[in-house]
Amino acid sequence: MSERHLDRMRRAALEAATLGHDAMVIGPSPDLVYLTGHDPMPLERATLLVLRAGRDPVLVVPELERALAARAPAGADLELVGWVDGVDPYALVASMLDGAGTVAAGDRLWASHVLALQAAAPGVRLVPASAVMVRLRGIKDADELDALRRAGAAADHTFEAIVTTPFAGRRERDIAADLADLLVEHGHQSAAFTIVASGPNSASPHHEPGERVMVDGDLVVLDFGGMLDDYHSDTTRTVAVGQPSARARDVHEVVLRAQQAGSAAVRPGVPIQEVDRTARAVITDAGYGERFIHRTGHGIGLEVHEPPYAIEGDTTVLEPGMTFSVEPGIYLEGELGVRIEDIVVVTAGGVEYLNTTTRDLVLVE
Amino acid sequence: MSERHLDRMRRAALEAATLGHDAMVIGPSPDLVYLTGHDPMPLERATLLVLRAGRDPVLVVPELERALAARAPAGADLELVGWVDGVDPYALVASMLDGAGTVAAGDRLWASHVLALQAAAPGVRLVPASAVMVRLRGIKDADELDALRRAGAAADHTFEAIVTTPFAGRRERDIAADLADLLVEHGHQSAAFTIVASGPNSASPHHEPGERVMVDGDLVVLDFGGMLDDYHSDTTRTVAVGQPSARARDVHEVVLRAQQAGSAAVRPGVPIQEVDRTARAVITDAGYGERFIHRTGHGIGLEVHEPPYAIEGDTTVLEPGMTFSVEPGIYLEGELGVRIEDIVVVTAGGVEYLNTTTRDLVLVE
Repeated sequence: MSERHLDRMRRAALEAATLGHDAMVIGPSPDLVYLTGHDPMPLERATLLVLRAGRDPVLVVPELERALAARAPAGADLELVGWVDGVDPYALVASMLDGAGTVAAGDRLWASHVLALQAAAPGVRLVPASAVMVRLRGIKDADELDALRRAGAAADHTFEAIVTTPFAGRRERDIAADLADLLVEHGHQSAAFTIVASGPNSASPHHEPGERVMVDGDLVVLDFGGMLDDYHSDTTRTVAVGQPSARARDVHEVVLRAQQAGSAAVRPGVPIQEVDRTARAVITDAGYGERFIHRTGHGIGLEVHEPPYAIEGDTTVLEPGMTFSVEPGIYLEGELGVRIEDIVVVTAGGVEYLNTTTRDLVLVE
Repeated sequence: MSERHLDRMRRAALEAATLGHDAMVIGPSPDLVYLTGHDPMPLERATLLVLRAGRDPVLVVPELERALAARAPAGADLELVGWVDGVDPYALVASMLDGAGTVAAGDRLWASHVLALQAAAPGVRLVPASAVMVRLRGIKDADELDALRRAGAAADHTFEAIVTTPFAGRRERDIAADLADLLVEHGHQSAAFTIVASGPNSASPHHEPGERVMVDGDLVVLDFGGMLDDYHSDTTRTVAVGQPSARARDVHEVVLRAQQAGSAAVRPGVPIQEVDRTARAVITDAGYGERFIHRTGHGIGLEVHEPPYAIEGDTTVLEPGMTFSVEPGIYLEGELGVRIEDIVVVTAGGVEYLNTTTRDLVLVE
């Protein structure tokens, strides 16, 4: 797989140069996995990939992880510069950045490393690397799309299984545990998150599933996902325990229309903020505009959340191969919440859905 | 538990002022857990705790996680400032830092947040918060020590169980999986890492356990730990499959003497670098100085690795309640490696061992 990583590193250096950056510095993160296949735990010891246009890529690595780095997919194509405890790795990197004016730093690089690098290279201006990386990671290749398709299908099967189990009388955390098991059972390597927000808790978008026992009449937001071949799933459905109120049905119907309108707006050439505008207009027109308290979606791939974002102000123009969520919601504090989320792919002809299980209000026991 | 967190936040602001910092900014991280009990996933949306001496603590939080933050242990004592997608949270924080010159930023804060904050508050100089946090987190209270003691005992039981199983003919990854199960079986909430490095792989300190099948004559480095009540264990023992060579016995004996000398140097008033010097001297005197390629130890608590560090140049003076690893090693590339690691606590009288299982070279089948 080394040719793939070498190509990605070359393209990153080129994109960086196009944006006027003289170099890139990337620490342990999904960016590093994407560029090199190397996936060490982020730690206080600095592991830093240095990319400069026209020069070979260098990985500055703790000496005790050199063997591990050498065996990474791109290990043979990297110049490995090991440093032992006591040596200043930032001075090492600064010497490689000699003459550089602007350097793009990976989004997840820790402050301890950022501040030490700024101190070691006072003439360098660090800027976020996301503008470069979104040009690469934002557009998935065939293998990446295949992994995302399989992850989406596994998430759909998880939903179809969970709604056959009883909800009434059980705790949110019990359903969350079942969701985690089902994600793995249906092919994920691991579960990443399992939001189960019932009754009034459903009005809290990032609710942590707890001790609340579900009862007839509850709406329950199920927002879950996992990793499959390193790529993520992320889907949301809102179900009703027993018979939902007229208000619950009404809110669900508005969110569903918003979700479908947002997805239908997806096609090449459209700025991603247009997806947000389209979904939001439906909710605003229905009188719930103030209660849609988050963006419409986020890119997905090696990370659950990654650029671009479906939000006013993100003018990224959609291209085939981009993948992101469309997930409007309405949250009525103390009462109920509804969110519906699919992952979509921009195709030459418009849009492909990676989640296709029913979006209608499913009634569970 | 709110009084505990309030007290910690007050002490942090005070220590920051003592060091000449006007404020602290902390994102999702063990620092945030320590100060507030709030433990959200680090994400691209900014969650930032702002501490200023003489003012109430403020948590800038994504609106969709406000309910979650309010229910955190210190939630009721924090002024929660929610921001919705589309608002600039860094401008919000910058307005709170008005007039500040130097601000300490949490070590794990992502570059995306650090660089955005620097752009929003150009008059502010960010410095690492670790100098403040080590004054707090470095010295454990009775409850923290109790959790670390139980984690250490659970790790010892894990070792005692694993050496009763056969190694020869099994893969490194099989032993690693067993270690992970045993860590949980003996009381950890989760396993954090399980290094199993056999034969020549044992010369790679952070080896990732793989397909290698173990054979008679191998040395095997077992370095494993987990989390228990949010505090970590981390212990290493090196075992021999069948009969070890004379060379393996010799190297093990040197590392054991270094480990015991390092631990015996632990007492209040001693700079932590003295522990490194003491252990290193034993290995250097035996002629293996060049093959001890890492520091002697690291602080441990909410993080597996945290300040202070047992390394030349870290002059942190040991005080009762400090906890860290003592883990010298010798690595002979292509041949073998040995590491022995205990967690120790600095006590009024000297040192307490949190790992007490045998450090002798155990022979396994």
